Amino acid sequence: MTTERLETFADGVFAIAATLLILNVGLQGGGSIAHQLVNGWVAYAAYAVSFLTIGIMWVNHHAILEQLGRADRPFLLLNVCFLLCVAFMPFPTRVLADHLRGDGGRAAAVFYGLAMLVTAVFFNVIWQYGRRRLLREDADRRTVLAISRSFAPGVTLYLVATLVALVSAAASAALYAAIAVFYVSSGERFVR
Amino acid sequence: MTTERLETFADGVFAIAATLLILNVGLQGGGSIAHQLVNGWVAYAAYAVSFLTIGIMWVNHHAILEQLGRADRPFLLLNVCFLLCVAFMPFPTRVLADHLRGDGGRAAAVFYGLAMLVTAVFFNVIWQYGRRRLLREDADRRTVLAISRSFAPGVTLYLVATLVALVSAAASAALYAAIAVFYVSSGERFVR
Amino acid sequence: MTTERLETFADGVFAIAATLLILNVGLQGGGSIAHQLVNGWVAYAAYAVSFLTIGIMWVNHHAILEQLGRADRPFLLLNVCFLLCVAFMPFPTRVLADHLRGDGGRAAAVFYGLAMLVTAVFFNVIWQYGRRRLLREDADRRTVLAISRSFAPGVTLYLVATLVALVSAAASAALYAAIAVFYVSSGERFVR
Amino acid sequence: MTTERLETFADGVFAIAATLLILNVGLQGGGSIAHQLVNGWVAYAAYAVSFLTIGIMWVNHHAILEQLGRADRPFLLLNVCFLLCVAFMPFPTRVLADHLRGDGGRAAAVFYGLAMLVTAVFFNVIWQYGRRRLLREDADRRTVLAISRSFAPGVTLYLVATLVALVSAAASAALYAAIAVFYVSSGERFVR
Repeated sequence: MTTERLETFADGVFAIAATLLILNVGLQGGGSIAHQLVNGWVAYAAYAVSFLTIGIMWVNHHAILEQLGRADRPFLLLNVCFLLCVAFMPFPTRVLADHLRGDGGRAAAVFYGLAMLVTAVFFNVIWQYGRRRLLREDADRRTVLAISRSFAPGVTLYLVATLVALVSAAASAALYAAIAVFYVSSGERFVR
Repeated sequence: MTTERLETFADGVFAIAATLLILNVGLQGGGSIAHQLVNGWVAYAAYAVSFLTIGIMWVNHHAILEQLGRADRPFLLLNVCFLLCVAFMPFPTRVLADHLRGDGGRAAAVFYGLAMLVTAVFFNVIWQYGRRRLLREDADRRTVLAISRSFAPGVTLYLVATLVALVSAAASAALYAAIAVFYVSSGERFVR
Repeated sequence: MTTERLETFADGVFAIAATLLILNVGLQGGGSIAHQLVNGWVAYAAYAVSFLTIGIMWVNHHAILEQLGRADRPFLLLNVCFLLCVAFMPFPTRVLADHLRGDGGRAAAVFYGLAMLVTAVFFNVIWQYGRRRLLREDADRRTVLAISRSFAPGVTLYLVATLVALVSAAASAALYAAIAVFYVSSGERFVR
Repeated sequence: MTTERLETFADGVFAIAATLLILNVGLQGGGSIAHQLVNGWVAYAAYAVSFLTIGIMWVNHHAILEQLGRADRPFLLLNVCFLLCVAFMPFPTRVLADHLRGDGGRAAAVFYGLAMLVTAVFFNVIWQYGRRRLLREDADRRTVLAISRSFAPGVTLYLVATLVALVSAAASAALYAAIAVFYVSSGERFVR
């Protein structure tokens, strides 16, 4: 079984989940339209961070499948579970954007962090499974190592950010953004 | 006519229907954000079960098309009808998540079951039609048999769960989840 | 320029427009959940008719592109205009489902008919343009004629149904359903 | 790394962002259904202009990737940022359609213009990066020049229209429509 149709389905879920994020963005608060538009910056930032995060996962998922020669059924089902997490992201993003500055800020930030954490765990499971069973015969050892090294910190980073959310919603939100930027920039090492 | 463009369209509908499910998920009830987030577990479970169900149908649809060498127009139109059912799923899922614990629980559960039943019937029709008319010349007999054996119980299972819903919404909801898990685990037999 | 990427984009719009139709479907009226679910039959029917219509357009768009060897820029832009109409369909469908049985029934039915009419016109323009300029050298003359013959009545049928809508919303709604069923069944002639 | 999977993801985002625009369209104001349907013309026009704009960007993105032989990781990430802007478009479109005729018209029009401006900037960055680093060896010089010449005015045009929005919302809205039409017609020169 080739990975081609998995790619189509996965690309669909990535693209739709990322694009649906915009439905969470709306005018916020009262006052003039200009004021409401400026006031929406938290929602725009949440949109951007989640879109970037999904985008990076798409780029990395791409990198994984390139190293695999085929897919088997457990791999497809693991991917369905992973994509279930990806498609879930618009909900914690909406909760975080709506409540970051209010009473429920920490609860919203913890929820967002837990969602990212589970997603990162599934991502690593997919990679570990694929790396051990489905690697192409001509897969490049250095790229494989680079991918493993790049994915490893994700779980820890989101765990730390989630724990920070118990104390400060704003600090954890900054961390979520920083993790996205970190992956955008650091990733350039392993795919050239 | 090859099956390629059908795959693209079908993958699109599967991916979108699955991803749209998240629009049904929202904060529920009153109290603190943390409480509302915990309170939403029925909606998360309904999301997960329907996402997994769509995901499994996608994997199995994949398995069907792999055994077919081509598509003809009746097959395309049967697929449009099947995909009409798949794309309908967010609605019964929303109804079930919103009303499972309320007065209309049984009505919602019966409705969900009927939707799944019709979908399962169309799925079998597609497979029977494809198997008889469009099979690749080099299709693997054992895989074909395994697919037939795997798909057969779906209609019965959903029929039973729908009948159970007439008595208990919660019991039928548990059955819907169990059917999804059953297909996730049992399926591994026939594709290797 | 090949038609491949146009197909991906078009399949995306077809699949998304068809799948978004479900967002229009909701519980309607008061009373028990069971009653509201039964009461929603107009919305389900509108969903099914529009989904089938989009599905048939997808199958036929498929048939067109198979006869074309390439795409040029005007063809791409005509397709963008046509897909603009396809992606518009969820709106008239929602209006029709919500108002068919109320005071604004005829206005809603006329609006639905006009939307379908414009879509049918663009569909014919695409086919005429493609047939004259982009036909594959080895295109099958009989298939080309069959497609032309099959597409021709669409504009007239929707024009008649729209005029009927000025008098009776219910009659025109029945006609819209009948046109969809007509295309589902008649189409089998020209692709084999 | 080939550009194939980028195309799938990009086509997905283009198609979904364009199709989601319809969710912004609804009955507006009071009175009869017919009156509300006529009254919605601003929303239809905003839908059409944004759909066409996304459609043209899709056609042009297509033209870019055809000249490139491969993608590298920075290019993928630039594309993710660009697609983040494309997927954002339904929000300014909704704001403009809802407020063009009200008090916040100019704010809404400026916001729309800024969104388009940032999108146009990213589009040019993608093209400049691709043109310098990823050009196919057999890329056609004249097409490359034509693309560069065609994309250059976009940023200026949207900058002017945004400045006009500070004075008149209606005038800038007309300019946004004119820019879309300009690109629809002028583009035919460079792809033949």
